[in-house]
Amino acid sequence: MKIPDRTVERVILYRRRLRTLHAAGQVRIYSHELAGVEGVTPAQVRRDLMTIGYTGSPAKGYEVAGLIAKIDETLNPHQDEGVVLVGVGRLGKAFLAYFAGQANHLPVVAAFDVDPEKAGRLVHGCRCHGLDELETVLAERSVRVAFLTVPGDAAQEVADRLVRAGIRGLVNLAPIRLRVPPEVYVEYLDITVSLEKVAFFARRDARAAARSS
Amino acid sequence: MKIPDRTVERVILYRRRLRTLHAAGQVRIYSHELAGVEGVTPAQVRRDLMTIGYTGSPAKGYEVAGLIAKIDETLNPHQDEGVVLVGVGRLGKAFLAYFAGQANHLPVVAAFDVDPEKAGRLVHGCRCHGLDELETVLAERSVRVAFLTVPGDAAQEVADRLVRAGIRGLVNLAPIRLRVPPEVYVEYLDITVSLEKVAFFARRDARAAARSS
Repeated sequence: MKIPDRTVERVILYRRRLRTLHAAGQVRIYSHELAGVEGVTPAQVRRDLMTIGYTGSPAKGYEVAGLIAKIDETLNPHQDEGVVLVGVGRLGKAFLAYFAGQANHLPVVAAFDVDPEKAGRLVHGCRCHGLDELETVLAERSVRVAFLTVPGDAAQEVADRLVRAGIRGLVNLAPIRLRVPPEVYVEYLDITVSLEKVAFFARRDARAAARSS
Repeated sequence: MKIPDRTVERVILYRRRLRTLHAAGQVRIYSHELAGVEGVTPAQVRRDLMTIGYTGSPAKGYEVAGLIAKIDETLNPHQDEGVVLVGVGRLGKAFLAYFAGQANHLPVVAAFDVDPEKAGRLVHGCRCHGLDELETVLAERSVRVAFLTVPGDAAQEVADRLVRAGIRGLVNLAPIRLRVPPEVYVEYLDITVSLEKVAFFARRDARAAARSS
């Protein structure tokens, strides 16, 4: 089943919302309720749910528990997978701290750093290995996703090694664009760029408001 | 000057690249060099630079230092501004740790948390205040941007207070969509959704590859 990028993102958001409603005891939900929360149209919600093959009746509302189960089945058929993180510097540590203790079916199962001093240590509960162990550790585990939190000048080389070792999805926090084969999916999370962008628009609107007053 | 969202994002990326080249001693750069690095076309680079009013000659290449100065002038006319962060839980602390000691013209100047125990403390070098001091502290400073790292169920209320107190740009890490007035710019950074999306595509390609082999 080929599901478009944006659909996957929306379905993940629906599931998060549905889990909250399910925990609060809600049994059924209409597409317009789900739409309102996520800022999309009810028609979009219905199309998205048809895309993942959910066959509930929009007229009577969707069954919350059944819909969650269907999304889980579509997005996460193997619950036992984990992710690895490469680059245990300031950013990598911040992420390990964030994920530590979080209920997450994608736990960080191993971290790697070029600094041999860090090998063998536990960082926020996660075992840290030397970068030279990357291929060995990945060969032992069925990991397909990696967080890349290395500096920009090391990112491409590390990404190449990860891809050769079987990684097929990267969350890239390094400040560069990566060149990867078409079968590898890269998501860019660029905190500094996001912040600078917001700062620019916050000021632009200030100037526009000043002019119009 | 009305600069589109995507142009701002690209110009921020160009600047980061230009700063690296400048530090390495490069004096001039052609649009195709800048384009290659960021994965856009040279024509796009030239359009973007015209949009911000840079008048270098593409034929002879752009002057690296002059271009950086022009981008700074366009994007950051006031270098003295800072940002605040609301929500000093696991995620907020991770961000404070990340930004601490980073050369950044947008320092986190104050943090806020609902827990009165945290008031008065320094967290990774940043002063933490009780949430009840939000309006007072913002009134004293010319801050227009906030990081929102509170839990989802508190995010809308905190966002409303921030907007009333003069905040015009939000980097939202809380797992909900925010309702804000049109003059407020929100950037969503959703780490869990990004990770789940990558995990899905990493598996999808695995299945597609298995079928075609």
